[in-house]
Amino acid sequence: MALAVGMRVAVRALFRPWTLLRGAALGCTEPAAGGGDGARSFGSQRVLVEPAPAAGVAVMKFKNPPVNSLSLELLTELVISLEKLENDKTFRGVILTSDYPRVFSAGLDLTEMCGRNPAHYAEYWKAVQELWLQLYLSNLVLIAAINGACPAGGCLISLACDYRVLADNPKYLIGLNETLLGIVAPFWLKDTLVNTIGHRAAERALQLGLLFPPAEALQVGMVDQVVPEDQVQNTALSVMAQWMAIADHARQLTKNMMRKPTADRLVKQRDPDIQNFVSFISRDSIQKSLRTYLDKLKAKKD
Amino acid sequence: MALAVGMRVAVRALFRPWTLLRGAALGCTEPAAGGGDGARSFGSQRVLVEPAPAAGVAVMKFKNPPVNSLSLELLTELVISLEKLENDKTFRGVILTSDYPRVFSAGLDLTEMCGRNPAHYAEYWKAVQELWLQLYLSNLVLIAAINGACPAGGCLISLACDYRVLADNPKYLIGLNETLLGIVAPFWLKDTLVNTIGHRAAERALQLGLLFPPAEALQVGMVDQVVPEDQVQNTALSVMAQWMAIADHARQLTKNMMRKPTADRLVKQRDPDIQNFVSFISRDSIQKSLRTYLDKLKAKKD
Amino acid sequence: MALAVGMRVAVRALFRPWTLLRGAALGCTEPAAGGGDGARSFGSQRVLVEPAPAAGVAVMKFKNPPVNSLSLELLTELVISLEKLENDKTFRGVILTSDYPRVFSAGLDLTEMCGRNPAHYAEYWKAVQELWLQLYLSNLVLIAAINGACPAGGCLISLACDYRVLADNPKYLIGLNETLLGIVAPFWLKDTLVNTIGHRAAERALQLGLLFPPAEALQVGMVDQVVPEDQVQNTALSVMAQWMAIADHARQLTKNMMRKPTADRLVKQRDPDIQNFVSFISRDSIQKSLRTYLDKLKAKKD
Repeated sequence: MALAVGMRVAVRALFRPWTLLRGAALGCTEPAAGGGDGARSFGSQRVLVEPAPAAGVAVMKFKNPPVNSLSLELLTELVISLEKLENDKTFRGVILTSDYPRVFSAGLDLTEMCGRNPAHYAEYWKAVQELWLQLYLSNLVLIAAINGACPAGGCLISLACDYRVLADNPKYLIGLNETLLGIVAPFWLKDTLVNTIGHRAAERALQLGLLFPPAEALQVGMVDQVVPEDQVQNTALSVMAQWMAIADHARQLTKNMMRKPTADRLVKQRDPDIQNFVSFISRDSIQKSLRTYLDKLKAKKD
Repeated sequence: MALAVGMRVAVRALFRPWTLLRGAALGCTEPAAGGGDGARSFGSQRVLVEPAPAAGVAVMKFKNPPVNSLSLELLTELVISLEKLENDKTFRGVILTSDYPRVFSAGLDLTEMCGRNPAHYAEYWKAVQELWLQLYLSNLVLIAAINGACPAGGCLISLACDYRVLADNPKYLIGLNETLLGIVAPFWLKDTLVNTIGHRAAERALQLGLLFPPAEALQVGMVDQVVPEDQVQNTALSVMAQWMAIADHARQLTKNMMRKPTADRLVKQRDPDIQNFVSFISRDSIQKSLRTYLDKLKAKKD
Repeated sequence: MALAVGMRVAVRALFRPWTLLRGAALGCTEPAAGGGDGARSFGSQRVLVEPAPAAGVAVMKFKNPPVNSLSLELLTELVISLEKLENDKTFRGVILTSDYPRVFSAGLDLTEMCGRNPAHYAEYWKAVQELWLQLYLSNLVLIAAINGACPAGGCLISLACDYRVLADNPKYLIGLNETLLGIVAPFWLKDTLVNTIGHRAAERALQLGLLFPPAEALQVGMVDQVVPEDQVQNTALSVMAQWMAIADHARQLTKNMMRKPTADRLVKQRDPDIQNFVSFISRDSIQKSLRTYLDKLKAKKD
């Protein structure tokens, strides 16, 4: 449905996506079926953006087979698509979901964090930061329609939205399971979790790397609603209607007041946070642990 | 029952109410029926203060028809009455309630924020800040006996108390619905809400301008207790007895330790907060939106 | 079972326990029954440390009759034992419990705070701070197996652990009841409570000096689990197994990220906090109030 971005996006452009958008081959297609307001679908190889059957709302679908790993390419395309929507007056809200039921997103792409050089790790981490900042401070209403497993980076995306609807499937676990891989969530993701479920629940969940099944996720506050799998999109749409009823200006100022102090803690120390990540991930012990994990995954696949 | 303050209170005096109290005609009346401890009722045109049928406790009733709007006059009289109680060793606790069942307080008086000049907006906002600071850091035990609707400014007063009892009437909604009017709660009121119901619930409630019916208000933590309408005052009195059992000194130091960091954030930037309010409220778009809202209210009344 | 430390520990050594450990007569005994991994029990007069029947886990038992008051001696021995465990690669987790069912710990020892001189108060408070810092930032997994009443200082110890299991006995109340004695919890203990049960619940609990019975303690979040009295130790062990499954390095970094900002607030102002305590506790009114309380306790005993 969407044309591919036929080039590797330059990292400079990642943080100034508008530069890129002027020249790049972001695919534009005809209106999606059901999108009756005349708005056109667009997107890129890994991110489909379709108008929802409701005025002012787009659906953004992750499409990075097989498990929507947050590769540098996917991160880049997500940031660009969000920036485009942010600047397009047609849209006031976005529903984020997976193009594949079963996996919302498996999270960060471990192959980006293993066996590469420090410059690559730095580039990658900057893109992770950028995605979170863009989501967490978005002027759009963002609703996560979580139609699949949602660990680590998938959970990061969900937590940065304004509302989370999770499909009631016991296989769809959600949580920040970094410690299970021997790694540690960054402080700003920790802050996001604390803001969402409180300090005590966050402390326990983060240390134990807990992945919550739907009922527990709802109880602890990791998601706002759990619904039957076939009602995730419709629920997201009706929740969106409630948020659309609020004047953008007042809602955006309020959202910014709530979130800016948290985001500013990262903005003020992006470089140290990158350095911290690079030096941590470059350690022999961490590289070995990631390698072992990746080998296991590979063995399972073969 | 209470004599009127026969003059418009000078704004200087508002922030040094003791100056005013020395010379002003704050009405004093005979003991209220049921106030058997010999303490005298007092008050002003819009704020009745009566001794409760329990030692050391006063009941403060808002009486600003028709809906206890927080006009500059009412704000001024509330601050003066609180200051008087604060300095009167007879009283250790105050129950705040409405003289009319049905409306606790409709909140800020929009006529003070519409069609006036910047100096007036500044004066008004300073009075709003002052009321919150006085309530939030009060050495007295403050219990809100919420016997009516409690939006916006009414909710501000309730949240600044030590305990909230709400009458179980589905019409008695409570919440910070500022965004429904196109305006934004100030950061210190946001902080108060976060302290009360947590960051996540506050983020959602503030953005959507949610007004909670009693059962939901209790569940989210906006109030501490919901009781049948005719038991609000008695419940407030028995809760007060529990708080009175604690030595004032230790309780006050503990309350201060809990609340001072939040209050200090406003104290340190009262002037910027006033400037922010004045410039926001003076915008054409905001004035237009408030005007439309007031016209609707007026049309409904006629 | 354990030999006594036969001397009063010098206060200097309290904060450099390793100095002490080199020379002091910390008792070492044969393996406890059931501790089949060959690790030896050790401990001191008031703190027994036994290997648990699980690899890498120790059980630390308070044994300061009759109610495990946190005397200067007990505080000192706790800090030393924790430090020893912290530096002993054999152990990754510790279960804290009382050697007597019925009382976990009655809290701070009022005789250390009454009728002594300022230097003693300062020495005592420094030891209280030290215990909290050691517990709150421990690299070990700490689980409180609360097998008895747990007020004030007992609650402090519990709150600083990673997980709390409380015996389901209506007499086993837990909470910070300082205001009932006319005193005030320090700010860092307040912070610990806020981190655990949230701002609103902490504000109410601290002002009223609430002691929660098991069901309420669980509901408010003061403990994580309530189990029949004879299952406290086993539950603590199975919870510990869950925590032991996480790689130490990632778990410790995560714990530190969660807790360091809170601990740093004390680290940055230990001396002012001590001065504050000394001047508060030295007041005539406070001394009189503690004296009255102690006399009542003594009368009850006689």
